[in-house]
Amino acid sequence: MASESEAQRALQYEQTLMYGRYTQDLGTFAKDEAARLRLQEGDTPRPRRPSELLEYTQGRCAPCRVCTLQCQRFLISKVGEDWVFLILLGLVMALVSWAMDFAIATCLQAQKWMYGGLDTNVLLQYMAWVTYPTVLITFSAGFTQILAPQAVGSGIPEMKTILRGVVLKEYLTLKTFVAKVIGLTCALGSGMPLGKEGPFVHIASMCAALLSRFLSLFGGFYENEARNIEMLAAACAVGVGCCFAAPIGGVLFSIEVTSTFFAVRNYWRGFFAATFSAFIFRVLAVWNKDEETITALFKTRFRLDFPFDLQELPAFAVIGIASGFGGALFVYLNRKIVQFMRRQKTINRFLMKKRLLFPALVTLIISTLTFPPGFGQFMAGQLTQKDTLVTLFDNQTWAKQGISDEFEYLGILEAWRNPRSNVFVTLVVFILMKFWMSALATTIPVPCGAFMPVFVIGAAFGRLVGESMAAWFPDGIHTDSNIYRIVPGGYAVVGAAALSGAVTHTVSTAVIVFELTGQISHILPVMIAVILANAVAQSLQPSLYDSIIRIKKLPYLPELGWGHHEKYNVRVEDIMVRDIHYVTLNCKYRDLQQVLHSTKMKNLPLVESAESMILLGSIERTQVGALLSSQLSPQRRLMTLRQKVLSEDGHRLSDSSIRFQISTETSSGTPARPALRKPLKPALKRVPSSPPDSPPAGGTDHTGIALKSLFCANAATEPTEAQGTAYHKAKRVRISIVEEMILGDKMTPAEILEWEEQQLDQLVDFSSAKIDPAPFQLVEHTSLHKTHTIFSLLGLDHAFVTSIGRLVGMVSLKELRKAIEGSLTGKGVKVRPPLASFRDSTASTTEADTTALRQLWDRHQHHHMPREAGPGGDDDDDTPKGE
Amino acid sequence: MASESEAQRALQYEQTLMYGRYTQDLGTFAKDEAARLRLQEGDTPRPRRPSELLEYTQGRCAPCRVCTLQCQRFLISKVGEDWVFLILLGLVMALVSWAMDFAIATCLQAQKWMYGGLDTNVLLQYMAWVTYPTVLITFSAGFTQILAPQAVGSGIPEMKTILRGVVLKEYLTLKTFVAKVIGLTCALGSGMPLGKEGPFVHIASMCAALLSRFLSLFGGFYENEARNIEMLAAACAVGVGCCFAAPIGGVLFSIEVTSTFFAVRNYWRGFFAATFSAFIFRVLAVWNKDEETITALFKTRFRLDFPFDLQELPAFAVIGIASGFGGALFVYLNRKIVQFMRRQKTINRFLMKKRLLFPALVTLIISTLTFPPGFGQFMAGQLTQKDTLVTLFDNQTWAKQGISDEFEYLGILEAWRNPRSNVFVTLVVFILMKFWMSALATTIPVPCGAFMPVFVIGAAFGRLVGESMAAWFPDGIHTDSNIYRIVPGGYAVVGAAALSGAVTHTVSTAVIVFELTGQISHILPVMIAVILANAVAQSLQPSLYDSIIRIKKLPYLPELGWGHHEKYNVRVEDIMVRDIHYVTLNCKYRDLQQVLHSTKMKNLPLVESAESMILLGSIERTQVGALLSSQLSPQRRLMTLRQKVLSEDGHRLSDSSIRFQISTETSSGTPARPALRKPLKPALKRVPSSPPDSPPAGGTDHTGIALKSLFCANAATEPTEAQGTAYHKAKRVRISIVEEMILGDKMTPAEILEWEEQQLDQLVDFSSAKIDPAPFQLVEHTSLHKTHTIFSLLGLDHAFVTSIGRLVGMVSLKELRKAIEGSLTGKGVKVRPPLASFRDSTASTTEADTTALRQLWDRHQHHHMPREAGPGGDDDDDTPKGE
Repeated sequence: MASESEAQRALQYEQTLMYGRYTQDLGTFAKDEAARLRLQEGDTPRPRRPSELLEYTQGRCAPCRVCTLQCQRFLISKVGEDWVFLILLGLVMALVSWAMDFAIATCLQAQKWMYGGLDTNVLLQYMAWVTYPTVLITFSAGFTQILAPQAVGSGIPEMKTILRGVVLKEYLTLKTFVAKVIGLTCALGSGMPLGKEGPFVHIASMCAALLSRFLSLFGGFYENEARNIEMLAAACAVGVGCCFAAPIGGVLFSIEVTSTFFAVRNYWRGFFAATFSAFIFRVLAVWNKDEETITALFKTRFRLDFPFDLQELPAFAVIGIASGFGGALFVYLNRKIVQFMRRQKTINRFLMKKRLLFPALVTLIISTLTFPPGFGQFMAGQLTQKDTLVTLFDNQTWAKQGISDEFEYLGILEAWRNPRSNVFVTLVVFILMKFWMSALATTIPVPCGAFMPVFVIGAAFGRLVGESMAAWFPDGIHTDSNIYRIVPGGYAVVGAAALSGAVTHTVSTAVIVFELTGQISHILPVMIAVILANAVAQSLQPSLYDSIIRIKKLPYLPELGWGHHEKYNVRVEDIMVRDIHYVTLNCKYRDLQQVLHSTKMKNLPLVESAESMILLGSIERTQVGALLSSQLSPQRRLMTLRQKVLSEDGHRLSDSSIRFQISTETSSGTPARPALRKPLKPALKRVPSSPPDSPPAGGTDHTGIALKSLFCANAATEPTEAQGTAYHKAKRVRISIVEEMILGDKMTPAEILEWEEQQLDQLVDFSSAKIDPAPFQLVEHTSLHKTHTIFSLLGLDHAFVTSIGRLVGMVSLKELRKAIEGSLTGKGVKVRPPLASFRDSTASTTEADTTALRQLWDRHQHHHMPREAGPGGDDDDDTPKGE
Repeated sequence: MASESEAQRALQYEQTLMYGRYTQDLGTFAKDEAARLRLQEGDTPRPRRPSELLEYTQGRCAPCRVCTLQCQRFLISKVGEDWVFLILLGLVMALVSWAMDFAIATCLQAQKWMYGGLDTNVLLQYMAWVTYPTVLITFSAGFTQILAPQAVGSGIPEMKTILRGVVLKEYLTLKTFVAKVIGLTCALGSGMPLGKEGPFVHIASMCAALLSRFLSLFGGFYENEARNIEMLAAACAVGVGCCFAAPIGGVLFSIEVTSTFFAVRNYWRGFFAATFSAFIFRVLAVWNKDEETITALFKTRFRLDFPFDLQELPAFAVIGIASGFGGALFVYLNRKIVQFMRRQKTINRFLMKKRLLFPALVTLIISTLTFPPGFGQFMAGQLTQKDTLVTLFDNQTWAKQGISDEFEYLGILEAWRNPRSNVFVTLVVFILMKFWMSALATTIPVPCGAFMPVFVIGAAFGRLVGESMAAWFPDGIHTDSNIYRIVPGGYAVVGAAALSGAVTHTVSTAVIVFELTGQISHILPVMIAVILANAVAQSLQPSLYDSIIRIKKLPYLPELGWGHHEKYNVRVEDIMVRDIHYVTLNCKYRDLQQVLHSTKMKNLPLVESAESMILLGSIERTQVGALLSSQLSPQRRLMTLRQKVLSEDGHRLSDSSIRFQISTETSSGTPARPALRKPLKPALKRVPSSPPDSPPAGGTDHTGIALKSLFCANAATEPTEAQGTAYHKAKRVRISIVEEMILGDKMTPAEILEWEEQQLDQLVDFSSAKIDPAPFQLVEHTSLHKTHTIFSLLGLDHAFVTSIGRLVGMVSLKELRKAIEGSLTGKGVKVRPPLASFRDSTASTTEADTTALRQLWDRHQHHHMPREAGPGGDDDDDTPKGE
């Protein structure tokens, strides 16, 4: 079932990608909205406000009321401040985190209690031990599936994509929030090896989005897109911060995991909110009498004066390197499980039908294996994740003093003791079993993260190395005056940081570890291990989150990776698409139609003319469609008809003046026009093959009819969509459309065809189209490195390549991704980009530049002698230098 | 003298700004270089390599040699790897840091020894106490002044500017490196309240620059500009990291202090290098038997189980807020001292003459006041900075147990004990005195930072609060079962982080503090105090580094600050310069001359024509000058003359064919042309008023003569500049120039004038000019917020504002800075930008867009009917919507 839901998710993502409004669109949308609001403001509230005040002053306690009003306004203005928002966010998230922790602890307690109460019968005990998590996980999976399938999984890959500027639908809604919180609580309450850290990033982001929508009821500040992105970035930090009570680590981890470029001015936001959140989170623990004062979550008590010997460093380095390989293996295993589920058709089809079977099955297997009286005794199966960490970070050395000696004093350490084996075996079994269990469990379609399970495995591995070292050097390595024994707990800390760093490709796990344990004395070993683990893991596999992004096919740009020098040598001209379709300023409607047929680009470049190719801007595909359909609309046809009738009646006018009149009427904004143009957009979107695309290459005769059907559907849905004041207008429009349709039916199809053919030969009137006047432009010689930087920095989707104002090509995310991945193969081998070698033998840059310029200049001298025309004509110029 | 040198520095900066090559220029330069190298590679080594190999294979131990060659090549390729570079950088910096620490400690030891040895005579003691630092500081100031005045000061503001993309001359050279290292060692050895952290950022950056230049001897990897910037960013982290042995804090502090936008892919570089550097730095201490193992620099030993009570948090908050005010006051005081010195003409003039008097005077005053038997006894004057910090972070409580009781056991704590006063008085005096002393001392023109002095003051303030709390609650606040006494050392840690955070406007001082003390138990108090201090300080004053940037007038963009909402409402059209001068594609040389006369812009926009105003690219001012001067060069004049003579001889050709011939000759690249054009650029640079600027508005007759003199000077310097193979070519060119000059003298000035007038009427041939084909473009409706982001992200200097390809204005750093500072006045009051109110009442965005487009379209319809011409013509279109 996982595979099926994965596949579904992948599909859904691609759909959202199609529907997704990218930043640029959002920008223009925001602009329009702002303009509209400003206009409204100019129209209505301004004249009203003084009269309101006047009314108040005429009343009895007028000054009092004015004062109240001012106070209210002051408060509202304060609500708009960033820090109020951040405090609220921190507070809410701390409460959510604490409440969830409480609920999870209760759930786990209940399982323990059941298991303990039934100790008379092993079978009953087993039933209880296995059924409880299975029910919880199945409920979680089902609940999430029904309420909001977007809540499944970690959420960090999606947040990374959203912060990149892509709007993923339904990912920041209340429904998803509820599904994620409840689903996560149940999933973690089951005791499966799952984490809460990734989902918490998502929860915090949803919380921020909801909060900003709620606060925007008081003021208009929360409508700004740039600000919302900044707040989302802060929310990610809060998510990690209040999950681990690690404000600094939270901020850094969220930066590393979600951002490519980080605005330092957002830094304080993250710190502020995360600190406040962590503070409240820990204060709640004090208030609940769990703690005496604010301390770390997994406090360690290693000695301060001599934390480790210099000669222990190789052991730490070994932990780092091994963790690097382990982390890469974990990512690989996780991906392979997903891909296996997806590829095996029979499994896939079976799981498709029984969606909840896969989670239940996985839970059954895992909980059977951890059953304490059974195999669980060899892997400390009875410990919860938290207890495991506490014991692993323990100050004692387990190996040297034959385990039974001092183990009694702390109950939970008992779990690691097994009369039939020793500590080393238990640790090895624990690591091996938990490794595949975690990799498997994180593919269950419930809200869950992989950070904490990996963290625990890393700690166990570190402990194993530490215990081995302690057994090897019973009196420590340092043999001077004092005897400093080896602290295996320190190794566990190092291992935890290294393995989680390797899986997530982050360095900041080091900081998280310090904040979690409350001790920073092992800073150098931790840093060395984390960096080595990162170096190894990054050269072998993508990070877990990038892996999920690839599996889910989210629209994201891969990183350039560790120092790939050849990136500095690939240029835009090597990767750009040269054969692009464009719209010229003096083109005919027929050309528009042709362009729509021949390309699927979302944005079309608008050039001055096919000869000059000077880029003027870019126009959306939907806009072109709208232009075309409004030109061929039955309404216009009827208007022509009516005018013809009028002119035939007596007022015989020249043909050109009629056309002139038409064009004025079209552009002067009669009420029908905008009303018609607006609903067209969603209509075009809803039907995958938009009307200009639908007819086959030869026949354009059905266009009018296809359009008509579209308009009919549209006219029918209109009143439900446009409520309130717009209703009357819509009604009128509908009536007029219907009326005109009836009139239009008087024309024969042949006449319609003739008329449409005639219309298609007219020049396009761009005055009503929305044009992005400054699409992003690159030059042919921009390096891949710089292109990647610019795309990441500005969250671009595509960019046009120009040469002295002339359009020569286009680069989109797809080409860029291909170029980067092409030279960065799976095994980390660096391959020379296929086209780079051609360039080495050609002429220098400046020469090429000047050649192009000279051509332009020549063209200007011999004023308008068209040298070459046609869409692909410009490639001829570039071939000698580019390829 | 400080003021004078400050003034000089300011001037010098402005000069560097003028000469400074911005990123774009560097980009093109790099491109040309790359092209040149590629060509060379294509020409020479490729054919040679096989022959070399052939030679080897013909020899005896051929396979062996081939193997050696391959090994060598492999090693060279490895040298190009980032991590090799970073390890080398870390190693070198750790060694430098350790050696400097050692030298400084020796210097301070020497002073103590002198002072201790002369305890028989107070006067002699005083002489020794005062003379020693005065000599050191004076030497440091003099040495720096002579060797490299760029080494003066912190260096962080300059690094911030350099990382912004501006090239500051002479800031990353070996000379500056030597001056900074030796100057800093002497300055810190004097015992003045100065820090080493800012200069260390600068030293590390210089080290990286030198190292990359050194390593580029082995391979070509280090020539890439983008990579160098990335490496500089890593170097900044190394600087802080190896100064405090704080890798994480170092990375974060350097990011906060130097970057506006941070590329997360650089993150690991900083961490890697800083960790390695800190590791080596601490290993050296172990190796030198200073430490038993790797520990923190200022290790604290606070209790772990109950670090602080929840009810102590208000006290920590008070420290934070007070530190915020204190930090702002420090920055204010520092700036005022500099400005006072600069303004007071008499002082200024006096200090101008005796440059070393100011440092000597300041040192004299400060060391007199700290003289331990004198006033120094009330402020622990005998302690070095390091000792002061150790005592302030001490675990003991000073106030409760009457000081004399347990103080004996630790020698240096003695300094805080004074029989004539108590600890509180000593602390207050210490804080007050050190405050102004540090603010004054950091204005001395020696290499020095302000971080450490501020850190010490903050620690003292924290200690004061902590001691007060300890005196107030002798048995701690928490009154349950256990008695937990208050730890004043913890307050000192909080105070240190808060005050240094307030002065530098950074949050990462918290992390630095944890790493310095090796304890993270106070994380929440520290975070709360640092955030509060930042909030207060940022609303009152710029950071110390930004303040220095303003004082020095470095080309830097101010930050947008804490959530200024109105930034989202200002648009580019409100701040752009509309009346810009431009070059058209079909202009005449006379127009070029006019443009050069009328504007001082460094980059001129190139438009298609004055009617269309379609932006084609930008051309550098120097390029325009070069075009103009090559057109009016005596050489061309002579060629015309010769041709005229030839044609008069018999081969009578039409005038146009002569012109054609000339133009071919000019552009086909005769040996004389490139050779002439190349030296022109430096010549134009060297003379501030370039030849096309020099003649007054009316007379252009001297141009030829001015040019001639330039060429003469040029021809004379040529042989010294172009050595080796270029020599013969240069000689030939010189001869031809001289020959032609003689020929040219045959023309009378009137004839020359006539010829030049004639030449100016010709159309410009842009084929030889370098044109940036994709200058950065904005749209009128881009928000200030977005503009700021884009400028910061891409390190822009200026951007053209276009409307559907048509140039309508321009925004440069200056306008942007004005716009930001205009709405962000000194007192932190938010003012509405002056032009924003005009916009509210005008039409919506889309309408304006379509209007402009319609005009373009109309123009196209009525093909080339010039509506308006002239440089300012376009303002008319924009006025109704823009203003």
